[in-house]
Amino acid sequence: MTPPTSARTGIWLIGARGSVATTVVAGCAAVANGLRPPVGMVTLTPPFQDCGLPPLGALVFGGHDVVSCPLPKRAEQLAAQGVLPYDVLAAVQEELAAAEAAIRPGGAVAGDLRDGHELVSRFAEDIVAFQTDNRLARCVVVNVASTEPAPRADDTGMPASSLYAAAALWAGAAYVNFTPSTGLHHPALSGAYKVPVAGRDGKTGQTLLRSVLGPMFAQRALAVRSWSGTNLLGGGDGAALADPAAAAAKNAGKERVLADTLGTAPEGQVHIDDVPSMGEWKTAWDHIAFEGFLGARMVLQTTWQGCDSALAAPLVLDLARLLARAHEIGITGPVPELGFFFKDPDPGAYASLAEQHLALLGLAGRLREGDA
Amino acid sequence: MTPPTSARTGIWLIGARGSVATTVVAGCAAVANGLRPPVGMVTLTPPFQDCGLPPLGALVFGGHDVVSCPLPKRAEQLAAQGVLPYDVLAAVQEELAAAEAAIRPGGAVAGDLRDGHELVSRFAEDIVAFQTDNRLARCVVVNVASTEPAPRADDTGMPASSLYAAAALWAGAAYVNFTPSTGLHHPALSGAYKVPVAGRDGKTGQTLLRSVLGPMFAQRALAVRSWSGTNLLGGGDGAALADPAAAAAKNAGKERVLADTLGTAPEGQVHIDDVPSMGEWKTAWDHIAFEGFLGARMVLQTTWQGCDSALAAPLVLDLARLLARAHEIGITGPVPELGFFFKDPDPGAYASLAEQHLALLGLAGRLREGDA
Amino acid sequence: MTPPTSARTGIWLIGARGSVATTVVAGCAAVANGLRPPVGMVTLTPPFQDCGLPPLGALVFGGHDVVSCPLPKRAEQLAAQGVLPYDVLAAVQEELAAAEAAIRPGGAVAGDLRDGHELVSRFAEDIVAFQTDNRLARCVVVNVASTEPAPRADDTGMPASSLYAAAALWAGAAYVNFTPSTGLHHPALSGAYKVPVAGRDGKTGQTLLRSVLGPMFAQRALAVRSWSGTNLLGGGDGAALADPAAAAAKNAGKERVLADTLGTAPEGQVHIDDVPSMGEWKTAWDHIAFEGFLGARMVLQTTWQGCDSALAAPLVLDLARLLARAHEIGITGPVPELGFFFKDPDPGAYASLAEQHLALLGLAGRLREGDA
Amino acid sequence: MTPPTSARTGIWLIGARGSVATTVVAGCAAVANGLRPPVGMVTLTPPFQDCGLPPLGALVFGGHDVVSCPLPKRAEQLAAQGVLPYDVLAAVQEELAAAEAAIRPGGAVAGDLRDGHELVSRFAEDIVAFQTDNRLARCVVVNVASTEPAPRADDTGMPASSLYAAAALWAGAAYVNFTPSTGLHHPALSGAYKVPVAGRDGKTGQTLLRSVLGPMFAQRALAVRSWSGTNLLGGGDGAALADPAAAAAKNAGKERVLADTLGTAPEGQVHIDDVPSMGEWKTAWDHIAFEGFLGARMVLQTTWQGCDSALAAPLVLDLARLLARAHEIGITGPVPELGFFFKDPDPGAYASLAEQHLALLGLAGRLREGDA
Repeated sequence: MTPPTSARTGIWLIGARGSVATTVVAGCAAVANGLRPPVGMVTLTPPFQDCGLPPLGALVFGGHDVVSCPLPKRAEQLAAQGVLPYDVLAAVQEELAAAEAAIRPGGAVAGDLRDGHELVSRFAEDIVAFQTDNRLARCVVVNVASTEPAPRADDTGMPASSLYAAAALWAGAAYVNFTPSTGLHHPALSGAYKVPVAGRDGKTGQTLLRSVLGPMFAQRALAVRSWSGTNLLGGGDGAALADPAAAAAKNAGKERVLADTLGTAPEGQVHIDDVPSMGEWKTAWDHIAFEGFLGARMVLQTTWQGCDSALAAPLVLDLARLLARAHEIGITGPVPELGFFFKDPDPGAYASLAEQHLALLGLAGRLREGDA
Repeated sequence: MTPPTSARTGIWLIGARGSVATTVVAGCAAVANGLRPPVGMVTLTPPFQDCGLPPLGALVFGGHDVVSCPLPKRAEQLAAQGVLPYDVLAAVQEELAAAEAAIRPGGAVAGDLRDGHELVSRFAEDIVAFQTDNRLARCVVVNVASTEPAPRADDTGMPASSLYAAAALWAGAAYVNFTPSTGLHHPALSGAYKVPVAGRDGKTGQTLLRSVLGPMFAQRALAVRSWSGTNLLGGGDGAALADPAAAAAKNAGKERVLADTLGTAPEGQVHIDDVPSMGEWKTAWDHIAFEGFLGARMVLQTTWQGCDSALAAPLVLDLARLLARAHEIGITGPVPELGFFFKDPDPGAYASLAEQHLALLGLAGRLREGDA
Repeated sequence: MTPPTSARTGIWLIGARGSVATTVVAGCAAVANGLRPPVGMVTLTPPFQDCGLPPLGALVFGGHDVVSCPLPKRAEQLAAQGVLPYDVLAAVQEELAAAEAAIRPGGAVAGDLRDGHELVSRFAEDIVAFQTDNRLARCVVVNVASTEPAPRADDTGMPASSLYAAAALWAGAAYVNFTPSTGLHHPALSGAYKVPVAGRDGKTGQTLLRSVLGPMFAQRALAVRSWSGTNLLGGGDGAALADPAAAAAKNAGKERVLADTLGTAPEGQVHIDDVPSMGEWKTAWDHIAFEGFLGARMVLQTTWQGCDSALAAPLVLDLARLLARAHEIGITGPVPELGFFFKDPDPGAYASLAEQHLALLGLAGRLREGDA
Repeated sequence: MTPPTSARTGIWLIGARGSVATTVVAGCAAVANGLRPPVGMVTLTPPFQDCGLPPLGALVFGGHDVVSCPLPKRAEQLAAQGVLPYDVLAAVQEELAAAEAAIRPGGAVAGDLRDGHELVSRFAEDIVAFQTDNRLARCVVVNVASTEPAPRADDTGMPASSLYAAAALWAGAAYVNFTPSTGLHHPALSGAYKVPVAGRDGKTGQTLLRSVLGPMFAQRALAVRSWSGTNLLGGGDGAALADPAAAAAKNAGKERVLADTLGTAPEGQVHIDDVPSMGEWKTAWDHIAFEGFLGARMVLQTTWQGCDSALAAPLVLDLARLLARAHEIGITGPVPELGFFFKDPDPGAYASLAEQHLALLGLAGRLREGDA
């Protein structure tokens, strides 16, 4: 049994100046320093002790971004929105500045494969340099950038998310796709990976609920007739997903969990509305019409009001810690036991949260034993 | 391995002229005759095939009640309320009349132990006669009567629900307490039972939801601060539960599932309001305030609108079938694997629905193998 | 002061075999015969007594439709859906048959003006014949057909709803457009009408709510930031409005009431989803994010679960009665005092329900006095 | 016509160190200094211009309280809860300190009338001294203290709220009771007042909604069968109202608005739950079951999530400004035109918000004209 590592571990964030990334960096420092309890972090609960995960204090942050607003400034904006408490903001300035110093320019992509290769190469060099400069034992690349439009049929080049994913592979870093963007799902990136990878699209609200409610209806043999949902999002994600092409991938994930857990696809649509005034907050309403015994018509409605960054950030830290340890013990390729975290998990993952949680506990055992 | 039985099996309903009982009798006939699909019946899903459960067509109904409105009349009222479809009502008149003919007078209880013994004796004789007259292989007694007030400290006699439970034991019948009433939970009825028993308080709405939502919050390490609920009920149950003493047992079950799944008891109360105009329908609103990463305050609200009888009746049939088979293969005493069906399950049961479902599947295996 | 009329009055329904029309015919008979109280009928409340409105017993029904399912059959379907009570269905067979006998074939429209003229002529002849055959004092044509697509820029012909409206004018009948379809809003139909007309798009749910909630926010000087809505509809209307072009007119009305009552157009969209399994029932969810003092962010959510036909039918009877009396005393042209009933009322109407109600009471006074 | 006054006007707050009072003082400064727009203040909308109301900059604050936490400290706590923005907090320190300096000790009351007289005398002297020291033209006393228990039958003394109200009368100050406490509703305080008075119980959420929804159902002749509500409150008010005796007065107001606007009292209860973790925020759920045409059963549900202090504070400023002007022009006794602001308005007030708003606009006209 390998002793728990405390080797310095890098987390390289694609979209490193966004709300999620900022909350990851600030929150990691706040919890590591004991300013706040580790609420929302699954890997700091008892089943994950002694699994060799890198401690929060050993995590080092950097990343790519195409926007220039520096991380400490972004953190101030999040504090004004009620996402970061003001005392936390004041206490983590140093950590924000350190991460800011490690951010390198990302790059928009013209769609041309030759340019793509050059970009991948530059991105990979940035990641390698980050590891060398900080004497890191290893690095996990996590995509937390805004959702990109779904690729169109005539797209011949790789989308940006796939270029970053390719760079992670080239740099020998583990890779997590926390968004519905293409990432490793591009045909040119299929094959046997030498690092552990996980994705895609973090499950933080409506789909999380669906992954427990769907099984409930199925286990009780209740017939779900329709499942309709509306999401109201502000922030950058609302704007990105107001584009129907961008929303398509996300909605596919939301509906897949229903088909997988119910055994049949109910009627109903999912809407994602951009409501800028909601800022970092989101609301998801679900209306589920179901039939019971003798056709009695019943309804369940749910309203989930959450802060996207606060829901996503601890899961990003969880995933990075789990994948770092997986990397350390030699696990490679997709890790379906991480389906617990995703809307659209890797093949082989369960669809119900309860089964996903059991699988995750199983992974914890493997990580503890060092059993790749 | 014992071949599936098709022996005639009795279901003796305490509260045999109530809404749930009426829906049980009418619905059993409707599904057995192919008028309606078996929506809501868990034991007619694939995992329970070949488990030796008595087929619906082999079930024979009778019971005790203190009210005199005959079953066919009660069924008409349920049709007017939209619980029983009119075509079903018309098609099951014969089965309703047969069950009505097998109903014997129940009896209010003065609280005196001597009278109690006499009542138990009369009730047991009724059950035995029902078995004999109908040449039944065995019988399951199910309490679906209105909830009785919680016993007070100075109550020396047994409550009615316990007298009926005692009668079931004396008659050698399996026993299910589908209500929060005392039933077998009376000290005078403790001990080693020679029949399988199960209870208590069928889980048909708000608590069902809580048993999947509580684990979700716990598995995601989210800190639930408060969980508040309001139930609006019409029908007899609304009136019974408007009595705080009667509601106490029910609410205890609702709150226990939270403490058991969350690991801590959140703030918040549960109200049960009698709203007569809602008739057979009930609405449950839950408001769950939780904290995420860095203390972000979020809220989930659920509204469940259901028909109590339509939710309860298929579970009553499920429980009766499962307990009949358990009885056949020699299982005795509480069956915690049936916690899936109850708000306040027997000791040893899991609290989360997912684990309860796994346990139930395990029981299905034992029943299939005839492994007591 | 003119004494109340009891002259026989015709109601000619465009879409005469639809859910709303069927409920109008059956419900009028049920209330007229004392089978049910006049719940939902505004003109049977005290302020409208002695206004000379034709009594329900004096109303005679006919209409156009392009579907062939006869009215009594359609009524059976509505009973199975819980819209018409079975005892009402049984009691109004004669009235349904009478109305069915008076239905004439409607006609789809090829878009060619010449054909249009011929259709209008045939439709008008049907209406005139209905009046003559039944010795009616007057007739009110009410469009309760499914919403038609909004006309496209290159449409040169009249939409069907306008042809029917033109037919009403030619036949000298008053006209009500209870749908968002074009009707009299076609440029070729502008001008001075010789009959009273009213429209458009009956206000039966979400917009009704908005017309009282919008003024509340405005009167309290609360700043509404976003107002988002989702409608789930089954039945024919759900399918018709799932077409974005058809939904456009309806949504315009829903959003206009906000701009008019709030004085500013908030962020937010309105969705109309076709959910066939909901049948005659509809659910509307509204999410209103508003700011209070010092920018405090607050939220109101509403969920309206209604039966479209049951909400619309009594208003159709109200409008027909009011317009019949208006016709009798010589009122011509749009009647903005009827804005109370519509999403998209005629110019000059108020936007808030309270002001619309005051205007309606004013109209009641004019009708009572016979003051055109 | 009297020219608008800019005479210095006192606002003497009973409960001067509570959340509402703190938000009043801080918010008045923030709006007066242009830091925030006057959202939520009705008297800063156009209809109230030129009515001679004292400008915000002319308001001077003081008051009584029995707690000792100073106002600037309380303001910090409100900022941490998200009620006061941090930039506002920083900018209004001077005004908070000034108000803090003018707060005098309140006093619990033993229930003995002799002590009561002494307390009233001391309270009145404090108010007079406040006016003299600050050279105020006049003063309005506003009760914003925690709700006190409803008086019991055997209470012979005056409750604290009545002692403060008596002190206001003795000091010649106008008086507003923004709480459901007794205040002037004590028999010993009846009679002809020499000052204008207004009450009681500010309408900030659930009852505000009810005052527009009740009239909507009545105007549409829809039959409300039940109206059930649950309020979740943190803060001091949640704890105070968890006492059924304290909640009784509040609930009476909530139910009265239904009876008054619907013309009949529907089934259903109102719960007020103390949920300390909700802090300054409150949630109110209402479930309204109503019948439409032919008995169709429909439901409206509303969920109101607000910040109590942010809802109440601007109304307190509105009332104080209106009453100061009313005082100036010689209006005395209850002012039912202020029913717009209250759950339990003075006799003669309308019950529907729309009519209350019209009455308020009428009062604005009287104040403009100086017509007592």
